[in-house]
Amino acid sequence: MNEFVADIDNPDGNTMTTSLEKRLFDELEQLVLIDPHTHINPHEAPSKTLADIMGYHYYTELAHSAGLEKSQIEEDGLDPKTKVGRLVEKLSDLDNTIQVSWLLEMCREFFGFTDDRITPDNWEGLYDTALAKMSEESWEQQVLEKSKLEKVFLTNDFDDKLEGFDTNIYVPCLRTDDLVFHFLKKSVRNRLNEASGIEVGDSSTFRAAIAKIFSHFVEKNAKACAISIPPNFSPQKVDAGSAAAVIKRTVKGQRLTSTEQEMLSSFAFWTLAEQCDEHGLPFDLMIGVNRRVYEGGVYQGQDLFDKRVSLLQYKQLFNAFPNVTFPVSVLGSTSNQELVSYSWIFPNVVTNGHWWYSNIPTYIEVDTRSRLEAVPRNKQIGYYSDMYKLEFALPKFRMYRRVLAKVLASDFVTGRGWTETQAIDFGKQVLRGNVETIFKV
Amino acid sequence: MNEFVADIDNPDGNTMTTSLEKRLFDELEQLVLIDPHTHINPHEAPSKTLADIMGYHYYTELAHSAGLEKSQIEEDGLDPKTKVGRLVEKLSDLDNTIQVSWLLEMCREFFGFTDDRITPDNWEGLYDTALAKMSEESWEQQVLEKSKLEKVFLTNDFDDKLEGFDTNIYVPCLRTDDLVFHFLKKSVRNRLNEASGIEVGDSSTFRAAIAKIFSHFVEKNAKACAISIPPNFSPQKVDAGSAAAVIKRTVKGQRLTSTEQEMLSSFAFWTLAEQCDEHGLPFDLMIGVNRRVYEGGVYQGQDLFDKRVSLLQYKQLFNAFPNVTFPVSVLGSTSNQELVSYSWIFPNVVTNGHWWYSNIPTYIEVDTRSRLEAVPRNKQIGYYSDMYKLEFALPKFRMYRRVLAKVLASDFVTGRGWTETQAIDFGKQVLRGNVETIFKV
Amino acid sequence: MNEFVADIDNPDGNTMTTSLEKRLFDELEQLVLIDPHTHINPHEAPSKTLADIMGYHYYTELAHSAGLEKSQIEEDGLDPKTKVGRLVEKLSDLDNTIQVSWLLEMCREFFGFTDDRITPDNWEGLYDTALAKMSEESWEQQVLEKSKLEKVFLTNDFDDKLEGFDTNIYVPCLRTDDLVFHFLKKSVRNRLNEASGIEVGDSSTFRAAIAKIFSHFVEKNAKACAISIPPNFSPQKVDAGSAAAVIKRTVKGQRLTSTEQEMLSSFAFWTLAEQCDEHGLPFDLMIGVNRRVYEGGVYQGQDLFDKRVSLLQYKQLFNAFPNVTFPVSVLGSTSNQELVSYSWIFPNVVTNGHWWYSNIPTYIEVDTRSRLEAVPRNKQIGYYSDMYKLEFALPKFRMYRRVLAKVLASDFVTGRGWTETQAIDFGKQVLRGNVETIFKV
Repeated sequence: MNEFVADIDNPDGNTMTTSLEKRLFDELEQLVLIDPHTHINPHEAPSKTLADIMGYHYYTELAHSAGLEKSQIEEDGLDPKTKVGRLVEKLSDLDNTIQVSWLLEMCREFFGFTDDRITPDNWEGLYDTALAKMSEESWEQQVLEKSKLEKVFLTNDFDDKLEGFDTNIYVPCLRTDDLVFHFLKKSVRNRLNEASGIEVGDSSTFRAAIAKIFSHFVEKNAKACAISIPPNFSPQKVDAGSAAAVIKRTVKGQRLTSTEQEMLSSFAFWTLAEQCDEHGLPFDLMIGVNRRVYEGGVYQGQDLFDKRVSLLQYKQLFNAFPNVTFPVSVLGSTSNQELVSYSWIFPNVVTNGHWWYSNIPTYIEVDTRSRLEAVPRNKQIGYYSDMYKLEFALPKFRMYRRVLAKVLASDFVTGRGWTETQAIDFGKQVLRGNVETIFKV
Repeated sequence: MNEFVADIDNPDGNTMTTSLEKRLFDELEQLVLIDPHTHINPHEAPSKTLADIMGYHYYTELAHSAGLEKSQIEEDGLDPKTKVGRLVEKLSDLDNTIQVSWLLEMCREFFGFTDDRITPDNWEGLYDTALAKMSEESWEQQVLEKSKLEKVFLTNDFDDKLEGFDTNIYVPCLRTDDLVFHFLKKSVRNRLNEASGIEVGDSSTFRAAIAKIFSHFVEKNAKACAISIPPNFSPQKVDAGSAAAVIKRTVKGQRLTSTEQEMLSSFAFWTLAEQCDEHGLPFDLMIGVNRRVYEGGVYQGQDLFDKRVSLLQYKQLFNAFPNVTFPVSVLGSTSNQELVSYSWIFPNVVTNGHWWYSNIPTYIEVDTRSRLEAVPRNKQIGYYSDMYKLEFALPKFRMYRRVLAKVLASDFVTGRGWTETQAIDFGKQVLRGNVETIFKV
Repeated sequence: MNEFVADIDNPDGNTMTTSLEKRLFDELEQLVLIDPHTHINPHEAPSKTLADIMGYHYYTELAHSAGLEKSQIEEDGLDPKTKVGRLVEKLSDLDNTIQVSWLLEMCREFFGFTDDRITPDNWEGLYDTALAKMSEESWEQQVLEKSKLEKVFLTNDFDDKLEGFDTNIYVPCLRTDDLVFHFLKKSVRNRLNEASGIEVGDSSTFRAAIAKIFSHFVEKNAKACAISIPPNFSPQKVDAGSAAAVIKRTVKGQRLTSTEQEMLSSFAFWTLAEQCDEHGLPFDLMIGVNRRVYEGGVYQGQDLFDKRVSLLQYKQLFNAFPNVTFPVSVLGSTSNQELVSYSWIFPNVVTNGHWWYSNIPTYIEVDTRSRLEAVPRNKQIGYYSDMYKLEFALPKFRMYRRVLAKVLASDFVTGRGWTETQAIDFGKQVLRGNVETIFKV
C-alpha cells in the first residue's frame, strides 16, 4: 500500500508519512474526550453570538497588538456586532496566527463557512448565520456532540455554590489563586468566611475553613484543585504558630512584609496540598505566569512571563506529599525538559497539557515529542482546551491531535516499528485514558 | 532501492515538499531587500580583498577556536594575502560550519569559484580573482545589484558626522551603547560635548545634548536608534534630580557605586526612549550580550552570553513608551518564546531578525516557526544581515530565505492549505514589507 | 513524482531521505568506537543476569515513577530474578520510553529475543537465555566485539588503585566530585591522605596530595579528569593563604560557613585544573545536576536539575587555563546553545556528548543539529554511553547514530550538497576521530 493518492487535504504533502499521519489523526479524532481544564461557565457554556468567540482575549489582544486601540475594543456599551466588525478589520494582520486558524476552523465546522478568510465583506453574513445557530435551543448539545466532548472540567472560585448545572458533565475544580495569593484582600477573606461559615483568624480556623471548602467541592463531584503561580514562588512548609501570627495581622488589616506575605502564601498552599492529600484530589499546578505585565492591555490580555523559573522550587512540596498527584503545566517551553525529567522521576508529578504561550504548534510539537519518549505513558495528560466557550474545544483539540498524530507516526510507527494500533492506543491513553485514571472520572 | 527522481538542486531530496519549497524560495529570492541592520562603513562598503571577508571575526574567531594562535591571525603588519593563507590552512577544521558555507557561497556567486572547498591548493587563485573583481570601479554597485539590495541600514556612533555618503542608500542609525554604558569614560563624554556643542554636566544638559544628537541624525535621514544590552540590565525611570547628582559626580571623574552606575545607565536609556518617542524613531533593542567573556580572543571574537535574562526586565520601559516601537533581538534562542509572547501582547514590541549566536539554521528555524504562527504578521522583521562588508548579505539572506521557504511550505501551504501566493506574500511582508512600515523607509 | 520504493526497515518511511539516512547510518555503524565516558567497573564489566540490566536506575526509577513501590524494588535480600519479574510487571506503563527501547534492542541483539514486548508471559525465558549467554566465559569479549567497542573510559574514584584490569581497554579517568564537593567529610579526607601518602592540612599539602593522585592516574594510562557540578557553582581562583585557613578548619572538623565551603570547593577545583594543565589531561565538566532532589527515590534515581545555570559561571576558569581542554556536558538542552557558542569561541572548550536528561532523541537531535553547523568539526565529542554495564553501549550508540545519520543526511548531503563520503567522514570524526585527538588515545 505504497501508492500515493493525492490527499485532498494535503495536495502537496509527501506520500507515506502523510497518509500514515492521516490515518492516525482520523482515529484519534474518533475519540470522545474529557476536557481536563477549561474556564467554561456551566450556566453559559456555549456562545450566544460570534462576539463571544471573537471578543475573547485570544482575538482582542492580538487585534490590539496589531494596532487596534483598546478604546475601540472595550468601549462602554459597545454592542457585540459592532465589536466583531471592528475586530474583523484587523484580521488581515492576524491571519497567519494559529489563533485565527482556530476561528476559521470553528466557523467552517459549526457555521458552514466556506470562504478562505473572514473579511470586512463576508463577516456579517457569518455573524448572522452564527447567531441563528447559536440561538437554537440545542446549541449547547450540538457543540458538545460535534466536538465529541463527554465531560468538561471547570475552574471554580472557592466560594462558587456549584448549583444549577450537571456536575457530571461540567466537573467542578477548585481554583485557589485567591486563597494563596490574595488573602490580603478583605474581599477574599470575607468570601472565605462566608463560604466556610468560619470566621478565619488564625491557622486553625484557616485550615478548618479550607477543609469546609474542600468538603463542599468534593460533595459536588469536584475532581481537582488547581492554581496558577508566578515564577518566583517556592512553596515551603510553614510552622502553624508562625502562620497564625501572620494571619492574625492580616485579618486586622495590618501591612505584611514581603517575607510575611510569602509565609502566608506558603501556609495557604501547604494547607491546600494537605486537603488534596486527605481527599485524594490531584493538585494542578500551572507554573510561571506574571500577571498584569502589560498594564494597558485589553481584559485578560495583560499577562506574560519571566522564563527564569525552575521546578526545583517545588522540591519540598513534591517530597512532602507523595500521595498527592501534581499535574504540572509550564508556561514556557524552556521549562518543558524539567517537566519531562521531574515526571520521569517523581511518582507524583505528571505532565499536563500545553498551556497558553506554549499552546502553539511549534512548541506543542517539541514538548510532545520529548514527553512521549521519556515520561511513563500513564503519567501524561495530553491536552486541555483552557476554553471559555464550548466552541473552542474542537479546533484546539484538533490542532493537538494533528501534532500527536505526526509524532506518533514519525517517532513510534516509523521510528520504532510500532503498529498503527499500538500508536493509536498510546495516543488515546494520553488524550483520555490518563485523564480517567488520574482524575478518577 | 534508491530510485527517485533527481531534482537538480536537491539530488537526494524528497520530491514534493522540496519542489514546493523551491518554488517559494525562488520567489522570495526575487525580492529586492532593505537590510535593516548592518555594520557597513558607507565609505568602504564592499571588500577590497578576500582578507576583508576572511579577516572578519566570523572566520578569525573560528580559526582561533580550532587551534590557530591569535598571534598568527593578528600579527602586526601582517599583509592581507598572508593572513588569508593562514586562515585557509584552518578551513578543513571549519568546513562544517554555516559560516564557511556563507564564504563558499560568496565565492561562487561573486568570483565564479567552482571547487568544492577552499584549500591550500586553490586559494591563491581565488584570492587573485577576487582582488581583480573587487578592484573594479563598479564593484560596490555590482554587489548591491547581485544581492538585490536597495538600502542598507548602518550602525553609526553618536558623533558620526554622517557626511560623504548617500543616506538614502546607506541609512543612518544611531548606536547608543556608549551613551548608556560608557558615559563613565572621559573620551565618551568629550565626544558627546563636542558632537552636541553642549557641555554636559547635569540631567538638563544631558537631555539637551541627546536631543541635539537626535536632531542631527533625523536631519540626516536616520531611521532607527539602536543599542546592545547585557543580560543583567533593566531600564527604569530615574528621577531627574537623582540623575543630575550622579552625572555631576561622573563629570568630575569621581567613582560611582554600582547602584549609581545603574541609575546613570537607566537615565541615559530613558532619555533615548524619550527622544525616540519625540521623533517617531523605532528603538532597536539587542538584548543579552556579555562583552569580553573570552579575554584572549581575537578582535570582535570575545563576546558571549549568559542565557539567564528575561524581557520582564523591560516591563517598565514597554509600558512607559506605548508610542515607541521596539524591534527586539535576543541573543539566545531560549529567549525566543518570550519575544514571541511579548510581541503577541505588547503593541509596541516587534520581533527583529536572528541575531549572532541565534543566526544559525537550527535556531532560525524553530524561532521562525514560532514567530510566523503566533505574532501578528505586521509585527515581525524577518531578517537583517548584521554584515561588515556588502558581500555578506547575499549568503546570509539566502540562508534565511531557505528556512523561511521551508516553514512557509510546511506550516502554511501544506499545513493550513494556504495558496503559494498567500505564502509568498507573507514571506515578502516579513522580509521587506514590515521593514518599510516599521522604519518608515 | 510521488513514486517510492518500499524500504524494508521503514515500510512507511519516505523514500529518499530514509534511503540516504540508512546508507549513512549503516556506514557509521561499521565504526569501531572508543567510548569516552562510562561508569563501567572493569572487574565486572558485562552483566551477569538480566537483573544487572533491568535493575539499573534507568528502569527502577521509571518503574517507581509509574507506581511501583520502592520497597518492591529495593527489598532486602531480593533475588535478581524476582526483582526482574516485578519490574517486568511495570513495563507496560513504560514501553513508550526510549530507555525501554534500549532494553528491547539489547535483548534482540544479544539474546535473540524476537517478541514485540517483554511481558509477564515471556520474560522468564528471556531471563534464562540471557543468563546462559552471560555465563559464557567469553561474554565480555562477545559484547565488546558485537558493540564494536575498542576502548571504554571509566569513572574512577580518586583512591582507586587501578589494578587488575587492562588499562588500555578500560581507560582510567579521575572522578573528582568527592575532592571538590565532599572534602568536608572525614571519610573523604582519610581516603585522600591514604591514597596520597600525605597528611593534608593546608593548601600546600592539599596540592601535593592532588599531585600524587594525578601522578598515579597518569602512570596508569588515565586520559581525563572529570567532575559533575551543581548549577550554582562558579569556580574562582582562591588565594592559597585563604584556602589554607579554610582547609585547616576543615581538617579540625570545624563547621564552615557557606562562603568558606565555596572557597574550599573553588580551591580544590582550581588545583585540579592546574594538575590537568601540568599533565595535559582534558578536564570533563558535567554541568548542572542537583543531587538528591527526590529524597524518596530509588538508588541513583533521585537526581534532577535546576535549568537556571550559565557557562558564564566558568568564565574565569576558561580564561585562566588556555592549555587545558574542557569537554563540557550540559544536563539541560536549554544550555546547549551556550555550549555551542562557548565551543565556537573558546579554543579550550569542546562539546561533549548528550548527557542524561538530554540523552533522549528529541534533545539529541536539536543539540546535534546546532553543534554540527556551528562548532568547528574538531571540537565536538559526539557521544558517550555513560553505561554501567557493557550491554548498554550498543543501543545507546545506535540511538545516537540514527540521529547523527538523519542530521548529516538532511543538513549536509541534502542541505549543502556534500557527498555521502564527506558526510560519513564528518560523522566518524565526531564519533571517534575527535575522541582520539582530544584524549590522545
